[in-house]
Amino acid sequence: MKSALLVIDMQNGFLSPRSPLYIAGAPATVPACARVIARCRAAGVPVVFVTRAYAADGSDVEKPRRAAFLAGGRPLSPGCDEAISAAMPPEFGSAPEDCHIVKPRYSAFFGTELDALLRRLGTERVILAGTTTPNCIRTSCYDAISLDYDVTVLSDCTSSVTAEIQESNLADMARAGAEIVSSDGLVLD
Amino acid sequence: MKSALLVIDMQNGFLSPRSPLYIAGAPATVPACARVIARCRAAGVPVVFVTRAYAADGSDVEKPRRAAFLAGGRPLSPGCDEAISAAMPPEFGSAPEDCHIVKPRYSAFFGTELDALLRRLGTERVILAGTTTPNCIRTSCYDAISLDYDVTVLSDCTSSVTAEIQESNLADMARAGAEIVSSDGLVLD
Repeated sequence: MKSALLVIDMQNGFLSPRSPLYIAGAPATVPACARVIARCRAAGVPVVFVTRAYAADGSDVEKPRRAAFLAGGRPLSPGCDEAISAAMPPEFGSAPEDCHIVKPRYSAFFGTELDALLRRLGTERVILAGTTTPNCIRTSCYDAISLDYDVTVLSDCTSSVTAEIQESNLADMARAGAEIVSSDGLVLD
Repeated sequence: MKSALLVIDMQNGFLSPRSPLYIAGAPATVPACARVIARCRAAGVPVVFVTRAYAADGSDVEKPRRAAFLAGGRPLSPGCDEAISAAMPPEFGSAPEDCHIVKPRYSAFFGTELDALLRRLGTERVILAGTTTPNCIRTSCYDAISLDYDVTVLSDCTSSVTAEIQESNLADMARAGAEIVSSDGLVLD
């Protein structure tokens, strides 16, 4: 089955405790994400980095988080402190064949060219890594199922503010038909 | 704030224990849904019934639930048993000004004219009722936030397979910025 790896929102603005958008479980997933990125690159599985960027004035921030954005150093926007910027962990490296998409909202599919890209690549299954499980991973999962992709969620490469939130969301996605596996159990065929 | 009530998937195919798509918590919410529908009609708040329909051959069913659909009497499709059909509870009644949208997937916004309809109505806030909380209510909630609507989820008019799933999903949506209230606490202004 032809797969593509989506690495979602693994950026300083979500990984730093100094950011108002910090996801407590996310920094611990960086090594596992880096390993699966390297493995997919080596196997010829497309790696798509889907990231977030906000305007410096906050005009494009989701309404419920706009106040926190403005009060908290305007993470993920041009000119913000590097510690809460849109940059990704250096452990991920880069490769010429990597794909990059900037998304305006939670789902990697919402208002982006991701579906068209995946169709051009002949993708049958999306493999989800990144943060945060209840928001961007989960909305991407449901949109992918809605678009008739198979979905695999990597339990050790996704993260939440608490372990309870992580577990309840993985269980919900399993009931909706997603495959939930750790990166060690990921089969690329 | 100009509101619209969305009543999602309150149909025999989700309300009947004979359906493979049965949501155990849903039948108990019918009276509360009926009350809030009547209240919105009386207050001039648009009521939008968003429902599901499948082809009899199952060709448009989400892949993860296709086998259960075919084995379980093909709920919500033409010619299926009335007990698991697309019909809604008679308690909801009908009014000439009701709106009706059929959706092909989980989110009420996915592949439908709902956003265009809400804009024509001047909607600022969507009020969510119906089933099931982790799937169709939640995906609609995130899409509504992504489209800059305010969102209110009615805790006693939405439902899940278990109380634990209901509670964890309401808590996740609250953290994402939705207002969670019981229908008794709903303010229409």
